Amino acid sequence: MLFFTQCFGAVLDLIHLRFQHYKAKRVFSAAGQLVCVVNPTHSLKYAPARCAAAQTSAEQGVLPPCHHHEAVHDSQLVPCTCPLFSCPWEGHLEVVVSHLRQTHRINILQGAEIVFLATDMHLPAPTDWIIMHSCLGHQFLLVLRKQEKYEGHPQFFATMMLIGTPTQADNFTYRLELNRNQRRLKWEATPRSVLECVDSVISDGDCLVLNTSLAQLFSDNGSLAIGIAITTSKVHNAEAEI
Amino acid sequence: MLFFTQCFGAVLDLIHLRFQHYKAKRVFSAAGQLVCVVNPTHSLKYAPARCAAAQTSAEQGVLPPCHHHEAVHDSQLVPCTCPLFSCPWEGHLEVVVSHLRQTHRINILQGAEIVFLATDMHLPAPTDWIIMHSCLGHQFLLVLRKQEKYEGHPQFFATMMLIGTPTQADNFTYRLELNRNQRRLKWEATPRSVLECVDSVISDGDCLVLNTSLAQLFSDNGSLAIGIAITTSKVHNAEAEI
Repeated sequence: MLFFTQCFGAVLDLIHLRFQHYKAKRVFSAAGQLVCVVNPTHSLKYAPARCAAAQTSAEQGVLPPCHHHEAVHDSQLVPCTCPLFSCPWEGHLEVVVSHLRQTHRINILQGAEIVFLATDMHLPAPTDWIIMHSCLGHQFLLVLRKQEKYEGHPQFFATMMLIGTPTQADNFTYRLELNRNQRRLKWEATPRSVLECVDSVISDGDCLVLNTSLAQLFSDNGSLAIGIAITTSKVHNAEAEI
Repeated sequence: MLFFTQCFGAVLDLIHLRFQHYKAKRVFSAAGQLVCVVNPTHSLKYAPARCAAAQTSAEQGVLPPCHHHEAVHDSQLVPCTCPLFSCPWEGHLEVVVSHLRQTHRINILQGAEIVFLATDMHLPAPTDWIIMHSCLGHQFLLVLRKQEKYEGHPQFFATMMLIGTPTQADNFTYRLELNRNQRRLKWEATPRSVLECVDSVISDGDCLVLNTSLAQLFSDNGSLAIGIAITTSKVHNAEAEI
């Protein structure tokens, strides 16, 4: 009997997910934007040196001492930049994307403007929603994280990182936009490089930060839609003109 | 000797304030915006019934049971809407503005777009920065509040309220914008009516919310500049067209 109840529950979940996807598509496709449904993942980081240290210091609100490469030379190997796992992989920056896709199963989306639809926002912290975004000849990593910086008070942090060097990252501006019920919240900033560790960006609070109450105001049926756009920044344009 | 040191300190403070004002004017006046330097005020609410209740429930994160007039008739008296003081005054909605100016010394500014420059952001919570804004034939109350919703973790809450009824408030959209160091944060929403008590808007979190770290990123020398714009909302425009 329990087995049938569970099967029925699973089927209902599938129908609900399908319905949510169509609903999001209907709402956003009018604007010609690609909607990507992103399911949550629990962070599975464990032991090895650098990430354990980064995680502990992030929990204490201290900037972790993890990778701050100001310049990465072509021949230099970089560690795996997946924020979910502590992975021993090392490789050239150009193959980070294929490593993230193949080993960590992170999806990649193409398009100037996309909508990131994070499901199951009610799940307890720590939870991550992650996707890669291919745009303007580069790949970006979008991370939405639910984390309890202060015990018992989960918050949502969203940021975009360039899979490239900090110097390359300075050429772009990313925009995250929430829009629902006659309320609109926009965050615009220069993306950080993935070499700068997502944990430190979040512990610095230098990203879009949402309290649970604000996240609920912008959510629809437990899902949060974030409009994403990437442009080349003015500095880059000015340089190009010169 | 101590007396001279203190005098010298006071003179330095005055020079610093003057310098800050000119600096803000220089930065913003290029865009033709009026800059208003707003000094902080400690909330002095005390005893009497409704406001003490509102304050206590706001501290507990519960919606306070204070004034929810859906419709205010011309002849009806409304209580004082000043968020700083528990004031026994009652009067018609049309004279609330002059009461706030004369009794509570809240400044009023004219202009479609203004810059609200809140000084001394480092002061401990609870602290309020308040001003009135006259625009599109109506008066609005802008409240920036530093409050510890969670003990030991002060946050900043900014909202705009119409000095009018909730029905009138529905006709407007307000925008608060922070812009500094290649970062931009925008909040757009329909203003609430002052009849809906600012404490409840803040405890609901239905406003611009800033963590201390984000507030520091947007602050310059302890002052936070918030760009303010008010427009008539689309609903109102559509109605006007019909």
